[in-house]
Amino acid sequence: MAETTVVREKLDQAEGVLRALDIDVWITYGRETSDVAEPALPLVLDENFVWPGMVLVTGDGKRIVLCETHDADTIRSVGLHDVRGYENSLEEIFHDAIESIDPDKIAINYSKSNNTADGLSLGLYKQLEEYVEGSGVDAEFVSAEPVVNRVRGVKSRTELERIQRSVDISQEILESMRAAWRPDWSEADVASFVHDEVESRGLTTAWHADACPAVDAGGQAEWGHAKPSDLTLPPGEVLHLDFGVVADGYASDMQRLYYRPVDGDASIPDDLQAAFEDVRAAIRAGFETLEAGIPGYEVDAAARETIVERGWPEFQHGFGHQVGRNVHDGGTYLGPRWERYGDAPEKEVLAGQVFTLELGIETEWGYLGQEEMAVATEDGAEYLTDPQESIASLGE
Amino acid sequence: MAETTVVREKLDQAEGVLRALDIDVWITYGRETSDVAEPALPLVLDENFVWPGMVLVTGDGKRIVLCETHDADTIRSVGLHDVRGYENSLEEIFHDAIESIDPDKIAINYSKSNNTADGLSLGLYKQLEEYVEGSGVDAEFVSAEPVVNRVRGVKSRTELERIQRSVDISQEILESMRAAWRPDWSEADVASFVHDEVESRGLTTAWHADACPAVDAGGQAEWGHAKPSDLTLPPGEVLHLDFGVVADGYASDMQRLYYRPVDGDASIPDDLQAAFEDVRAAIRAGFETLEAGIPGYEVDAAARETIVERGWPEFQHGFGHQVGRNVHDGGTYLGPRWERYGDAPEKEVLAGQVFTLELGIETEWGYLGQEEMAVATEDGAEYLTDPQESIASLGE
Repeated sequence: MAETTVVREKLDQAEGVLRALDIDVWITYGRETSDVAEPALPLVLDENFVWPGMVLVTGDGKRIVLCETHDADTIRSVGLHDVRGYENSLEEIFHDAIESIDPDKIAINYSKSNNTADGLSLGLYKQLEEYVEGSGVDAEFVSAEPVVNRVRGVKSRTELERIQRSVDISQEILESMRAAWRPDWSEADVASFVHDEVESRGLTTAWHADACPAVDAGGQAEWGHAKPSDLTLPPGEVLHLDFGVVADGYASDMQRLYYRPVDGDASIPDDLQAAFEDVRAAIRAGFETLEAGIPGYEVDAAARETIVERGWPEFQHGFGHQVGRNVHDGGTYLGPRWERYGDAPEKEVLAGQVFTLELGIETEWGYLGQEEMAVATEDGAEYLTDPQESIASLGE
Repeated sequence: MAETTVVREKLDQAEGVLRALDIDVWITYGRETSDVAEPALPLVLDENFVWPGMVLVTGDGKRIVLCETHDADTIRSVGLHDVRGYENSLEEIFHDAIESIDPDKIAINYSKSNNTADGLSLGLYKQLEEYVEGSGVDAEFVSAEPVVNRVRGVKSRTELERIQRSVDISQEILESMRAAWRPDWSEADVASFVHDEVESRGLTTAWHADACPAVDAGGQAEWGHAKPSDLTLPPGEVLHLDFGVVADGYASDMQRLYYRPVDGDASIPDDLQAAFEDVRAAIRAGFETLEAGIPGYEVDAAARETIVERGWPEFQHGFGHQVGRNVHDGGTYLGPRWERYGDAPEKEVLAGQVFTLELGIETEWGYLGQEEMAVATEDGAEYLTDPQESIASLGE
């Protein structure tokens, strides 16, 4: 029942969003959802369906769950929904429910570009089509993508607290690593230290542990292409980590840079410092552009133009993705208008969405990547990370 | 790479199935598949897609993977597929691939009744429709359900070995529980002992550990409705467990019955023995009906009629489901023709499919449930479990 608070907040939020978008009912429909996730389901229900089940949410306060009787017992005990069980026929109780709502527009979870809003399978869609045709209702289906983008993307108070905690823990773990670091540590040793810190807190890494943290030790490391290796960090070069955890169901994601002193001298060479400033300037340019109402690609462009103006090649990825339940949380994307990103970069930034701000350059000292996290507001953005202002020295 | 052997067997199997069903190409299409599983993907690929990717399999030996370049590097190293990467446009390389196949029938993963064959999301389906329309190919989409039912359902040699091992381990754990059992053990203590045995072997339970094992201690236990409780088993009553593990990616699922002796007397009361024989007879009737070519509902009917003839109420579930990668593995179902089961009970049993055979009755001594596992053959079936022939006594 740990998620009751968030589900309650999300249901309230959905109610407002549905009214604003003039959608009569939003249907989330799944089965065996512990095997095949319906990514929108946890927004509206803190349980899984074994048998086919639906959550119907309306702008006027209806929160109906239709599901098999055994599933119903558990869900009813949570107390957030009007739960109606079936023994044999979902169709019958669906007809009752949909006729009482009598919608013109039914939003369902499909989207070409946003996987978090694309949880309806084609088989269940065909089933739902039949159910609607067999009812007394004359309604059209529309994509619930704008609903999911808002309800999942715009974080509630509880969600922001949890993401902040996840960020704080990641920063704390990275700082322990920095302090504990020893010159004979390979990339794999760094990863192993970080994994122990994650496990000792009873947490998991934000993505597959093989690549979380990603660790790049100096100019010889192949950025983005391999698991942490046996490579050690030469003096005068830079250790790069890309890392995050999941705490209380919410992810963090950040990149940090560390310098290995040369014969005890921790001062950063001027050229390296200048290159780092270029990365910082591009991150800052993106951060300063980020605010509610701007399309995602404009934020990307601000960072991209800055790094190119400063004489570095364009980064071959988007500047920022949303972070939430997943480390890649779908919806509005701070990316370039490349075909592979579909319409995600066209979408507007909404106040309360949490993004990464990330880019990097390859240099002789190693990969200089920086990644911060920020929440968009009506008039700007606020960092959730403590932005990296300088390259920290490794060791105590 | 642990799954390479099975994927190779499954790809070979798929090739024959596609020829037999006269399907030109079978497309499995997913993205972020570690977050939202495409349940057919592990049959044809031992990796996940981050970006949108497809596996195309044909009856004449083509095994093409189309995916983003970073995903492609990993998949290429496995060596089972013709891997083609894209940087920006999946559509372009899809056009090349589909035009070279030039199919009339494209099988895609959707099914109303079989969730394991329903992994294509509606958004990706709409995308695929556009891609095909934009190509030089004039093809119709058909459901890949018959393909998945065969390729997933009909177990390869390696898969049968793994399922047998999973069964053997479950039986071994249950026997340890029986021997170690103490009269003051509650249902929760029984579950806890079993969980320790599972964990010490580095395995997981076959379904959520809260209800695996399900434990029912005697006539007071509420069968099927609660987690293991503080209830202890009175002398002269029956302990019932429903349990399975996942080992090497394959599940087991069985129910077993144990008797608590009265003042050291382990002989089973005649009425209890007679009731147990009724359950056994119904299981046996189902087992004897099971063979390739018979529709699932006929196997269910044989067991159902037997238990009713012997004066007990009908069981309120199907007689048997497939077991494989999941404990509920979809496809052909040994169930009654109830609406909730869709067309799954109409489907034919295929040689090499693995099923549970299960039913139970509520009695004054407790719930008498028995569940075996068997593989269907061309002329009958073979048990994978050692079928329970008598109610074993608890304790050494």
